[in-house]
Amino acid sequence: MLDESARGVYIISVTPFDKRGALDLDSTDRLIDFYVGSGADGLTILGMMGEAPKLAHEEAVAFTQRVISRAGKLPVVVGVSAPGLASLAALTKAVMDRGAAGVMIAPPGGLKGDDAIVTYFQNCAEAIGKVPFALQDFPQANGLFIPVAVIERVVATCPTCVMLKHEDWPGLDKITALRSREKHGMRRLSILSGNCGIFLPFELARFPEMLVDVYTLMAAGRRSEAHDLFDAHLPLVRYEQQPGVGLAVRKYVLWRRGALKSDAQRKPGPRVSRETAAEIDFMLERLERATGPRSVRAAS
Amino acid sequence: MLDESARGVYIISVTPFDKRGALDLDSTDRLIDFYVGSGADGLTILGMMGEAPKLAHEEAVAFTQRVISRAGKLPVVVGVSAPGLASLAALTKAVMDRGAAGVMIAPPGGLKGDDAIVTYFQNCAEAIGKVPFALQDFPQANGLFIPVAVIERVVATCPTCVMLKHEDWPGLDKITALRSREKHGMRRLSILSGNCGIFLPFELARFPEMLVDVYTLMAAGRRSEAHDLFDAHLPLVRYEQQPGVGLAVRKYVLWRRGALKSDAQRKPGPRVSRETAAEIDFMLERLERATGPRSVRAAS
Amino acid sequence: MLDESARGVYIISVTPFDKRGALDLDSTDRLIDFYVGSGADGLTILGMMGEAPKLAHEEAVAFTQRVISRAGKLPVVVGVSAPGLASLAALTKAVMDRGAAGVMIAPPGGLKGDDAIVTYFQNCAEAIGKVPFALQDFPQANGLFIPVAVIERVVATCPTCVMLKHEDWPGLDKITALRSREKHGMRRLSILSGNCGIFLPFELARFPEMLVDVYTLMAAGRRSEAHDLFDAHLPLVRYEQQPGVGLAVRKYVLWRRGALKSDAQRKPGPRVSRETAAEIDFMLERLERATGPRSVRAAS
Amino acid sequence: MLDESARGVYIISVTPFDKRGALDLDSTDRLIDFYVGSGADGLTILGMMGEAPKLAHEEAVAFTQRVISRAGKLPVVVGVSAPGLASLAALTKAVMDRGAAGVMIAPPGGLKGDDAIVTYFQNCAEAIGKVPFALQDFPQANGLFIPVAVIERVVATCPTCVMLKHEDWPGLDKITALRSREKHGMRRLSILSGNCGIFLPFELARFPEMLVDVYTLMAAGRRSEAHDLFDAHLPLVRYEQQPGVGLAVRKYVLWRRGALKSDAQRKPGPRVSRETAAEIDFMLERLERATGPRSVRAAS
Repeated sequence: MLDESARGVYIISVTPFDKRGALDLDSTDRLIDFYVGSGADGLTILGMMGEAPKLAHEEAVAFTQRVISRAGKLPVVVGVSAPGLASLAALTKAVMDRGAAGVMIAPPGGLKGDDAIVTYFQNCAEAIGKVPFALQDFPQANGLFIPVAVIERVVATCPTCVMLKHEDWPGLDKITALRSREKHGMRRLSILSGNCGIFLPFELARFPEMLVDVYTLMAAGRRSEAHDLFDAHLPLVRYEQQPGVGLAVRKYVLWRRGALKSDAQRKPGPRVSRETAAEIDFMLERLERATGPRSVRAAS
Repeated sequence: MLDESARGVYIISVTPFDKRGALDLDSTDRLIDFYVGSGADGLTILGMMGEAPKLAHEEAVAFTQRVISRAGKLPVVVGVSAPGLASLAALTKAVMDRGAAGVMIAPPGGLKGDDAIVTYFQNCAEAIGKVPFALQDFPQANGLFIPVAVIERVVATCPTCVMLKHEDWPGLDKITALRSREKHGMRRLSILSGNCGIFLPFELARFPEMLVDVYTLMAAGRRSEAHDLFDAHLPLVRYEQQPGVGLAVRKYVLWRRGALKSDAQRKPGPRVSRETAAEIDFMLERLERATGPRSVRAAS
Repeated sequence: MLDESARGVYIISVTPFDKRGALDLDSTDRLIDFYVGSGADGLTILGMMGEAPKLAHEEAVAFTQRVISRAGKLPVVVGVSAPGLASLAALTKAVMDRGAAGVMIAPPGGLKGDDAIVTYFQNCAEAIGKVPFALQDFPQANGLFIPVAVIERVVATCPTCVMLKHEDWPGLDKITALRSREKHGMRRLSILSGNCGIFLPFELARFPEMLVDVYTLMAAGRRSEAHDLFDAHLPLVRYEQQPGVGLAVRKYVLWRRGALKSDAQRKPGPRVSRETAAEIDFMLERLERATGPRSVRAAS
Repeated sequence: MLDESARGVYIISVTPFDKRGALDLDSTDRLIDFYVGSGADGLTILGMMGEAPKLAHEEAVAFTQRVISRAGKLPVVVGVSAPGLASLAALTKAVMDRGAAGVMIAPPGGLKGDDAIVTYFQNCAEAIGKVPFALQDFPQANGLFIPVAVIERVVATCPTCVMLKHEDWPGLDKITALRSREKHGMRRLSILSGNCGIFLPFELARFPEMLVDVYTLMAAGRRSEAHDLFDAHLPLVRYEQQPGVGLAVRKYVLWRRGALKSDAQRKPGPRVSRETAAEIDFMLERLERATGPRSVRAAS
């Protein structure tokens, strides 16, 4: 079960679809093998980059079951954000029954004022019972800013809130502030994706081995080498970061690297254009020259 | 099946819950009897005022089934708006299998640009097959403005779009513009809630008999009497119109009038305060003096 | 100078333009005479309904000077909201030098989190020195919700905040909450437009004599008569309340009542359509029958 | 005068303030010398990164005058975005009288629907007369998405629209689409900041010499070298890109490089934290090792 001691690299997984938009469970196996082989410490599925809102309840459960059965002993955190508490609680129960380590919750964008955000998470915690959850702080996606003081209040009143999925911008000082509050008595949270000194790690999931290596180098105190490795990937990271098209880029790279049978997104969703594909290929070649050969599929 | 000839008064139904937040199917029967007894021509359920996002899929289906079986031959239109097409299509199939007349779809708030709105409805139409649907135009709720030209493009490319659920502000001139386009070749839509010359009819669902009478008077050319009757209800309409608390007011009035066993909203949702309840009672008394006795439950 | 003892009816003034969009200072005199003759206790100019953002600095100062010189001893509160503190402070200085009683400030819509709103008003208070100001709470216009706790913090830290311009929805319980906090030690604010038990008084400025009468009746304990009078105006109030077109309706009515030479809004802004004008005329006739003759200009 | 043939590197200038928030005209000279010395082809001032809304009208004019008198024959484009057309036109007139090459206009965020955006720019063009302007497409800042078809309509109906300030995300395909429309008859625009194949050039203004070099290399067909040089700066670019804190980072770097006497932002605005400053210093050192010595001020 997820708790505040979680650490290491939790990959943000995509969700594979075939070209007609159906869930692709064969590619799911291949993808999870790829992530596990890269040294991931855990998996996060059905988040914003997992096209979660596009899945019906039964599909979300089927995908989760497949991931968990393939991931072995790796903990799997499942995004269960939904417009209402009933759907959120129903999905939470279904995935925990199938072996998930915990769930991840992003608040809806329309909450008004600090108190409303605190109340929302208290309602969620009540609705899902004893299940540990990650608070997803992702204002770029839902327009909702969550102040440090609000996170502290959620932690103080929801014992099952054990992790922060940190994606706010600017975020580095936010992490500093949270860690400082912990020194003054706030219960410690696991902070997903901030510890490495990288503020865009969620962009990196199609090079999970790099992420693991960066983490390992940092943990060993080899800061400069960690940056060297990370910076070599920055041109692609920068490229993937484009809102709207970023997931299409990530799926294209995963397909080029052999982890997916198709780079399809379910509708509505963009495809990479011919120009975009050519530019990604150009950057992959440059990356290979800089960091040594990787398994890259020949462009079709 | 719903088509563009739909006319008359389609009540916007609330969804009854008991005090613990469970779906209250007994009150559902009572409520539908109340609406039918008021002379409604059709029912619209699971819209914004129906707390639809708070229901899990199975609950939405169960509520729909109960409403349809109680409503006799009245057509029932079911809101199926969802974050993704798979959930939307799954709910559509379930409610149509149980006898719904059609569905109602509000686009998500984040669509960017006119083309994106048109594409969204085309994707929906493709996802639900031959099912007739109402386009819900409700910018106050989701922040999305839908220009007349966009509605015209949806109508031109989606033969199953047969109704406009009209809640835009300012809306009267929008209706005028749409009717004018129809004279220039646009396929005719049924426009739900605009035809009576009332721009806030959705607020009125707790006085359905008044709405029916206003419609009947207008249809008979008795414009001034129609306004007299409607204007007598305006103080309460105005009161219910307050964003955030409006549904609590509506449920309180329905409870006072005996159509609900409880005025509970499912969490998260407000309750009427003591002061608010007293003010509604004051207005109900004034209304009764103006229009004759109605069945009003003694305040507990 | 404005202070927390301000009470009575502060009219929300429009800004007159001629048909080419130029500031119409002659109509300004006529309009202020109309407001003063109706018994107003004060004037509020250059608010949201005053098309303030459409005026250049010099125009705003010229209009303010004209209003103040015409309003006699009535206090004039001037909206000074601006994208930045330098413009806000410059306009504040200019209008206070010309005899304004105080200023009114709406925060920009993009503030994130409760703390940011408090800080914004502290920055404003610092920038304008000893000038008393009204905090404008108007989420429908700028998308920014201001919790009661935030207002309390502004009041506690900004001694020059003496008034709340209250336009939130739902707002009645917010006023109750604020008055309750005052009983527990919060410094008392003047609350503009809440005291009458009307939650839409800002809509009423084109019938200022009615507003004054309602206030007087309420102050005399004649609650039922106050509601009778107010409710007679509700059909027009309801009509004016339409976002986007409301100001066009208000200006049209003020023109029909002789207070303006033209109903022009400065670009960008809508005009009332032929259908809308006919509907307003219909409601004005009904109002006249209900409340006795008023000076209404024959439609051109 | 600005026209559609504008090309090369137009630096996005910051606005210097001293520690008390006053306009710092001495640093302005130093900053412009720094930009000119870096080989810039033009200057863009008072944009989003220029803290434009924080300047009162007189300050904006004074700053513009200083920049123009120092910039020699370099064209200066001045941001004149304002809440209303009167202020926009007044500032346009003032800066054109002082020798600006043209102005830049970002539409307000609240425009609803494609037609409203087109109308807005038509109103602006009418208000500023013959002055050439750049359409600023910056949805990350104002929440307004501008479709390609809207840009095409603005170009077709506003002969004075000669430039696109391109900051949309994802933007590369948007540029491709615009250039493709030009082949089908759309009047050619100068596109500011897209031509280099860099999609974040606006982030780069504190290393203007690099931007110029990248542009020169690309223009000479040396694509791979251009990417090498640009990619070396990416770690800092990535860091500056953080919303909210990005400008603080840029000003800190400009101060470290000697182009500013202070890194102060005018209130409200963040300061770089101690941790942030240390991280920037770390990246500057790494950059220097990669690209050779640059003039970097010793950290205080």
